[in-house]
Amino acid sequence: MSAIEDLAAELAKLPGIGRKTALRLTYYLLKQPPAQSRRLAEALGLLVERVRRCSVCANLTEADPCAICTDPRRDRAILCVVEESADIGAIERAGEFRGVYHVLGGRLSPLDGVGPEDLTVTQLVERVSRGAVKEVIVATNPSLEGEATALYLQRQLAGQVAVVSRIARGLPVGGDLEYADGVTIAQALSARRAM
Amino acid sequence: MSAIEDLAAELAKLPGIGRKTALRLTYYLLKQPPAQSRRLAEALGLLVERVRRCSVCANLTEADPCAICTDPRRDRAILCVVEESADIGAIERAGEFRGVYHVLGGRLSPLDGVGPEDLTVTQLVERVSRGAVKEVIVATNPSLEGEATALYLQRQLAGQVAVVSRIARGLPVGGDLEYADGVTIAQALSARRAM
Repeated sequence: MSAIEDLAAELAKLPGIGRKTALRLTYYLLKQPPAQSRRLAEALGLLVERVRRCSVCANLTEADPCAICTDPRRDRAILCVVEESADIGAIERAGEFRGVYHVLGGRLSPLDGVGPEDLTVTQLVERVSRGAVKEVIVATNPSLEGEATALYLQRQLAGQVAVVSRIARGLPVGGDLEYADGVTIAQALSARRAM
Repeated sequence: MSAIEDLAAELAKLPGIGRKTALRLTYYLLKQPPAQSRRLAEALGLLVERVRRCSVCANLTEADPCAICTDPRRDRAILCVVEESADIGAIERAGEFRGVYHVLGGRLSPLDGVGPEDLTVTQLVERVSRGAVKEVIVATNPSLEGEATALYLQRQLAGQVAVVSRIARGLPVGGDLEYADGVTIAQALSARRAM
């Protein structure tokens, strides 16, 4: 196999990149200065070498514990549970949350064979049972599996912590009622608040 | 900058990959065995190290001259001129052409500052003037710039070679007349052939 086909085959393994796109990217890189391909190769190498899981919250990090767990300004009494590390990025960009996180590493999914033992549920319960946490906000995705995971966590944490809460579901800001799905509208109506 | 952001920034430099997709790909790689990222990094390194331009036809190749230029079964009397190496792949997959190629390295584009001196036009004229070539098929893209480039090449090659031809334009096979654009239909009509 040639170097061109070889790189295209590796790129085509990435999600959302088909064989044609992979070839197009390869030819694109061949038109750029070699330094660009080298920087990309280096960045890939460093990723594998340096990134690991935080031993406290299971977030992806280069320093253990991670920057959020060691930040003295974060409120350790509020713990936000997310499915993946990428979700932390999304919440941090919103700039609202000043507590700490716990990364589950996925969501319960019996069909895919993902049970509680495949997630960091034991570590979460242990962490909460140490007593410093006052509220656990379950921020798993508002999908069928995310909801089931939230329900499961609520049961596991009952009695261990004063409050277990769930992020609100409703119409997205800037969204259009006309194009919202029925389930979202139903949720938005039942979760209505006095003005 | 962290290793995650670093790789995402490098991936986001690729065409068609935005900041969000780059982050998604990075997180995807972090969920895969490290060997996958390492193979991708290696393939990138080999690409830069091994791939060069064929000294005969300017095709991207690992061996110089390239596999097509050294193939004794190819007909050196028919020369097909394409814009990019990737175009050779497309023509080879069609399985119809048994001649040899010449890669221009782009198309004339005064707006982007691409003139004949930025393409391999001199090498093409030299190659043709050696006399072995009986026909030059100009297979630049059927775009405005591809047509202008074809016209320019036809003038440069006039007198050097018996036939300069242009690939046919018309309705694509499997296409639908109803959805074809007017320029394509006009071309298909004017290039009609007796049945």
